[in-house]
Amino acid sequence: MEYRFKRTYQANIKLVVFDWAGTMVDFGCQAPVDAFVSGFRAMGVEVSMETARIPMGMEKRDHIKTVVGFAEVARKWERVHGRPVTDADIDTMYDNFTSLLLKSIESKSELLPGVLKTVDLLRKNGVKIGATTGYFTEAAEIVIQHAAKEGYIPDFTICSSDVPAGRPYPWLIFRTMEALNVCPPEAVINVGDTPVDIASGLNAGVWTVGVAATGNQMGLTEEEIRNLAAQEYKRRLESARESLFNAGAHYVIDRMDQFPAVVDKINACLARGEKP
Amino acid sequence: MEYRFKRTYQANIKLVVFDWAGTMVDFGCQAPVDAFVSGFRAMGVEVSMETARIPMGMEKRDHIKTVVGFAEVARKWERVHGRPVTDADIDTMYDNFTSLLLKSIESKSELLPGVLKTVDLLRKNGVKIGATTGYFTEAAEIVIQHAAKEGYIPDFTICSSDVPAGRPYPWLIFRTMEALNVCPPEAVINVGDTPVDIASGLNAGVWTVGVAATGNQMGLTEEEIRNLAAQEYKRRLESARESLFNAGAHYVIDRMDQFPAVVDKINACLARGEKP
Amino acid sequence: MEYRFKRTYQANIKLVVFDWAGTMVDFGCQAPVDAFVSGFRAMGVEVSMETARIPMGMEKRDHIKTVVGFAEVARKWERVHGRPVTDADIDTMYDNFTSLLLKSIESKSELLPGVLKTVDLLRKNGVKIGATTGYFTEAAEIVIQHAAKEGYIPDFTICSSDVPAGRPYPWLIFRTMEALNVCPPEAVINVGDTPVDIASGLNAGVWTVGVAATGNQMGLTEEEIRNLAAQEYKRRLESARESLFNAGAHYVIDRMDQFPAVVDKINACLARGEKP
Amino acid sequence: MEYRFKRTYQANIKLVVFDWAGTMVDFGCQAPVDAFVSGFRAMGVEVSMETARIPMGMEKRDHIKTVVGFAEVARKWERVHGRPVTDADIDTMYDNFTSLLLKSIESKSELLPGVLKTVDLLRKNGVKIGATTGYFTEAAEIVIQHAAKEGYIPDFTICSSDVPAGRPYPWLIFRTMEALNVCPPEAVINVGDTPVDIASGLNAGVWTVGVAATGNQMGLTEEEIRNLAAQEYKRRLESARESLFNAGAHYVIDRMDQFPAVVDKINACLARGEKP
Amino acid sequence: MEYRFKRTYQANIKLVVFDWAGTMVDFGCQAPVDAFVSGFRAMGVEVSMETARIPMGMEKRDHIKTVVGFAEVARKWERVHGRPVTDADIDTMYDNFTSLLLKSIESKSELLPGVLKTVDLLRKNGVKIGATTGYFTEAAEIVIQHAAKEGYIPDFTICSSDVPAGRPYPWLIFRTMEALNVCPPEAVINVGDTPVDIASGLNAGVWTVGVAATGNQMGLTEEEIRNLAAQEYKRRLESARESLFNAGAHYVIDRMDQFPAVVDKINACLARGEKP
Amino acid sequence: MEYRFKRTYQANIKLVVFDWAGTMVDFGCQAPVDAFVSGFRAMGVEVSMETARIPMGMEKRDHIKTVVGFAEVARKWERVHGRPVTDADIDTMYDNFTSLLLKSIESKSELLPGVLKTVDLLRKNGVKIGATTGYFTEAAEIVIQHAAKEGYIPDFTICSSDVPAGRPYPWLIFRTMEALNVCPPEAVINVGDTPVDIASGLNAGVWTVGVAATGNQMGLTEEEIRNLAAQEYKRRLESARESLFNAGAHYVIDRMDQFPAVVDKINACLARGEKP
Repeated sequence: MEYRFKRTYQANIKLVVFDWAGTMVDFGCQAPVDAFVSGFRAMGVEVSMETARIPMGMEKRDHIKTVVGFAEVARKWERVHGRPVTDADIDTMYDNFTSLLLKSIESKSELLPGVLKTVDLLRKNGVKIGATTGYFTEAAEIVIQHAAKEGYIPDFTICSSDVPAGRPYPWLIFRTMEALNVCPPEAVINVGDTPVDIASGLNAGVWTVGVAATGNQMGLTEEEIRNLAAQEYKRRLESARESLFNAGAHYVIDRMDQFPAVVDKINACLARGEKP
Repeated sequence: MEYRFKRTYQANIKLVVFDWAGTMVDFGCQAPVDAFVSGFRAMGVEVSMETARIPMGMEKRDHIKTVVGFAEVARKWERVHGRPVTDADIDTMYDNFTSLLLKSIESKSELLPGVLKTVDLLRKNGVKIGATTGYFTEAAEIVIQHAAKEGYIPDFTICSSDVPAGRPYPWLIFRTMEALNVCPPEAVINVGDTPVDIASGLNAGVWTVGVAATGNQMGLTEEEIRNLAAQEYKRRLESARESLFNAGAHYVIDRMDQFPAVVDKINACLARGEKP
Repeated sequence: MEYRFKRTYQANIKLVVFDWAGTMVDFGCQAPVDAFVSGFRAMGVEVSMETARIPMGMEKRDHIKTVVGFAEVARKWERVHGRPVTDADIDTMYDNFTSLLLKSIESKSELLPGVLKTVDLLRKNGVKIGATTGYFTEAAEIVIQHAAKEGYIPDFTICSSDVPAGRPYPWLIFRTMEALNVCPPEAVINVGDTPVDIASGLNAGVWTVGVAATGNQMGLTEEEIRNLAAQEYKRRLESARESLFNAGAHYVIDRMDQFPAVVDKINACLARGEKP
Repeated sequence: MEYRFKRTYQANIKLVVFDWAGTMVDFGCQAPVDAFVSGFRAMGVEVSMETARIPMGMEKRDHIKTVVGFAEVARKWERVHGRPVTDADIDTMYDNFTSLLLKSIESKSELLPGVLKTVDLLRKNGVKIGATTGYFTEAAEIVIQHAAKEGYIPDFTICSSDVPAGRPYPWLIFRTMEALNVCPPEAVINVGDTPVDIASGLNAGVWTVGVAATGNQMGLTEEEIRNLAAQEYKRRLESARESLFNAGAHYVIDRMDQFPAVVDKINACLARGEKP
Repeated sequence: MEYRFKRTYQANIKLVVFDWAGTMVDFGCQAPVDAFVSGFRAMGVEVSMETARIPMGMEKRDHIKTVVGFAEVARKWERVHGRPVTDADIDTMYDNFTSLLLKSIESKSELLPGVLKTVDLLRKNGVKIGATTGYFTEAAEIVIQHAAKEGYIPDFTICSSDVPAGRPYPWLIFRTMEALNVCPPEAVINVGDTPVDIASGLNAGVWTVGVAATGNQMGLTEEEIRNLAAQEYKRRLESARESLFNAGAHYVIDRMDQFPAVVDKINACLARGEKP
Repeated sequence: MEYRFKRTYQANIKLVVFDWAGTMVDFGCQAPVDAFVSGFRAMGVEVSMETARIPMGMEKRDHIKTVVGFAEVARKWERVHGRPVTDADIDTMYDNFTSLLLKSIESKSELLPGVLKTVDLLRKNGVKIGATTGYFTEAAEIVIQHAAKEGYIPDFTICSSDVPAGRPYPWLIFRTMEALNVCPPEAVINVGDTPVDIASGLNAGVWTVGVAATGNQMGLTEEEIRNLAAQEYKRRLESARESLFNAGAHYVIDRMDQFPAVVDKINACLARGEKP
């Protein structure tokens, strides 16, 4: 055969898959960090907010394991407990964590600014809305109900405990595509506030967009941001953006109201025949 | 931020997902065609082998619906039955089809030449083996058992009735990646003998390889091929290859023993930073 | 429609179109230069070999017009004739030129080293051979007969006077493709020793290869080259290569025996999906 | 030499080559189909409009040969005539076809909506207009005269009987470029309503645009379209578009009034340095 | 490691490096040509303006050496002096040249139209301004002072005598980037009116823009242009543009007031991830 | 103008610029880390080897400033000194650091395995050797002398104190290119063992290669590596490689003896027309 034919997707984005905390709800992604810090404190180990955040986006049991594996945290643990951490310890912390997290989520699930308007606009353009989270089912349920009350109801939601492995694996995204009957990957955007979110999108072969100002990489509440000097705010925001671009994000926005403009840019890329 | 970082997968292929009939077993992909032709005959409608083959690769109920939708077949149906086909007719045919297919498969599931050697070579290079089919569970089971007896045991198998929609949707491939824990799509090849197989691979964002000589696009048994004049054989093979390239296949092979060389070519593409 | 399909030619080169003088015969491309210099001398205007060569590759009437349009030549003409050159002058020179050229060609149409072997190798690989020239029919005839005697017989020959406009227009190449029934342009290489040859290939959308050492850009006979100091030879050769690369040549060779290796490189480009 | 220089065409489109029936005249491309169906009927063989259309775009003798080669048609022929078709039969049919076609064309050569305005706009932008057809000279003449009366007079017209082989070969396009003195291929668009038209453009290395709604792939008159249910119309139109994109069309339009916008898009591609 | 990350610069242009004569001052780039012609005349050798211009952009000693190396000039020299040119001759000419040039520059350093407005606009967008020249220090000083009086004061200036080798080497550009603390090369544009300027930009890996109408390739004063027939003006301008594009210029403008639009185009290229 | 010409470098690599510590000498990049740790200890602040390494590759004063800016180090400093660090403190530490470093370097400047053979091979292929370092002049001098005694003498050496700003700025590389008269950037490779080295190469537009096993990202002496469990060694090596690929390295090697194979790969990229 003399010819092959390279297929190119030339239509628009058909599905956006949003992360929850730090992306659509919970300004600064506080709920899980609070719960982690409280959980470690309950075991006698003081962990800073910054440290507790590093693996954000992962399934929560893996998250605990990763934090306790950091050299400094491991040393503190041994100092307090006289022995290295065991699988049983992690089980205990995870069990405690779930109730701490549920409590924390209850008070920290407010929709972020711009979410409703953005989702509305996407739907007007025929785009479907998926929602994925590193939370386990019960925690996810609380967030979903809170968001629904405020008016954000995705077309499909799934959480890490529903698949064999959470992010950075792409299974949450693939299951969402299956449930909403959307392919190919070029027609999908994955949106999240952590490097792990970005990696899961790249691992699914879809477009990836990072959210810098309201999420985990910034790690500040709206009030904390208001109290920040302008230059320090700018420095931190730059650093949050950088961490998402370094992870391979195709685009980075500060807040959800900038998202529709990015969808336009991606649609223009698709029209030119570009792939994620 | 001044820089973004485009991630490129630079390792080798980690998973190959093979179709069954026409690709790994059943020379000429005869079993389902036999069953379809018999099934239509049972309803008083004569359908040629060529016509019965056209939608090959699809889930089997969709397949029946597609064939009966062809203008000529529809006319014959109406001539015989005095009315257009109904959903109930399709149900009847599908029910009959399953038992006809099971019978047909029993005698037509021999491994194709080169399969064992190729699978062996792939495994030696650390490549995992997935297997997907448009068959429903019972039919798949027979094929799997036959192949196992001959020595071909994939690491994971899944069939169309396990997912909401069969090919050309990519769900079978995504589920296989999830079960065998392999990502990103660049690390995966989907192999099949029909345009619908190729489309499912493209819809998953993976590499796609078509099999021309032993599969549905050729549609001939080994004996039929032996009886063919050299020039006619060549013409038909060219036409089979063309139909797979036209569907967007990245590579087309004639038989399974040519597959390892294609994996090498794809690994070279990956080393140069190319994507499917 | 969601998809478009970009067609890529993936087979090998099927046709090579060679220029004559400086490429396949007439070392240093002396015949036409001799004739031009003699022709101008007959009109009382001394023109250097270098100047006479500059527009080489063009149809010969255009060539005369271009040379006489050079500022310095125009000035000399006016000094001698007391008036600018007229169309009638160009007609006269062209008429004289034809007989001068015929004489010059008679003695300067030897095949260049490597030609027979290269053509033989191409034909063994199923490649067809076209031949084009800026010469008018009678001049071309002499060259063709000489070459045939030495064993080089192209599958098709055409000369500038057979088309509305010679090089850099691509009509000679298009007519050769039509006569030998070869398409698409990606399957064709045009080979010549002048920037105008290169341009005609680019204007046809085919691959272009320049010949540096034996052609017009070097402008030296075999004997003149033997008498050149090694460093001066290298300098001149570099300059000849540069003029062909600057014109947009995809590859440049020194002599015809290096051509088969370039065909292999271009076939490798085609296999990777590259276009000229 | 350390550098090579890749030439890129950066100016605008200079020539558009339009097909006639289905593209500029004859809504639904009815004339040749009528003639073919009538011609086969005269030989006692009933052929559907759909079947008669399949090879549309080809030179008309090849067209007849292709239709009679379809398995079903061949069987009918043998049933009626008691022997396979012979070259003499094809000659007879071709001879009959010419007069049937001339009659059919007389009544089906109206300009399509938007043609005059589009041609006018192109000319205002300095674009030349070529016209090619699979018709033989006499048939082409009728179409040309009808179109001229309505105001559409291309700068150059050529038909399949003027070249050694019609479409999908690119000779008609190359001859048009030569006659109108336009190169390189990047500066040319070929426009037609059949996959064979698209292939001829790709084989010439030029841009290709398919016309879906008024042409052969849709195969319906304006009246037939008006009588179609909206959903069926949409389904058929999608299918027509798909067949042109599958053939490798760079762009597909529904009707001629959408063409100027596509020229703008192609000019933007050229400005970015893209090739067809 | 499975992934590599290709870094792409996605911000805007941060630095523009302008040549002086023919680009920002001295319409037609007359000063150095005048000085060269006078210098050769002082040695008894008549050289045309066109010949004296050819190596424009080079360091001035190299320039003299190059001119005297042209075959025709060398012949004239030998005719006059009875011997080939020596290094001592070039020293003499260079020494004379410096004073001739200083005189010539005094009267030919007026700012070109559009310079002040363009520089002003660039600075408003935060772009830094570098200035480089092939002149030696004293000559550069005069130009700088004249320009400063008219209001054009670059952020950094450097001349060929400050680095081991002038253009086409990129050292002037690299030193400017270092002095103004701007990297990477993708963030920089080099602007000049000669092929040597373009080459120096390509050799630095930065974007390159040529200036056609006011510079050396046109080689005409404003008055000379006014006296030119429209068609001749167009022909010469086309030829000037061509010489800059042939050298590899990314963009060519006629006059400085067209430059801001080119910066916008390059910023759009950077946003799409393109490199120089 | 209808055409532009994109220049592509098609020759081989002409210059390699090597970092010193961790790349060519000092296995595990111990000398500066030792000095930093000792320097902080002298101020009463205990800093781990891992922390002291993070900004490796920077100019050394910037390095101290960066380490003391880490949250945890800053806290320790304030606990010990009762006040934040001042510029005067950094001056003191820098002054102490220089003598500590000189001492440390004296005993830790052995050539790494494979260096001499690799440099020898490069030179045989006509490649020039540059050497850059973040050390100040005196420290660099010691390293240079040690290396010279062992037989490694670069063609040019330069250190951070010779330019306005050290890495990640590209000035060291640009100055080396200028001194050795090598351009364009495509002809140059920068080699180092830290993300900052990689960034400086990208900022110069040259090819970048990271060294994983012997350098700072691994941070282990040969003996420490011998004592490491195989799996832990592999984990650490993967992590070192990852940090260099994440920074945008085009290639990563473990040790210097793998470097010539990478040069071959880059030469193959250049032959295909790729840029860094």
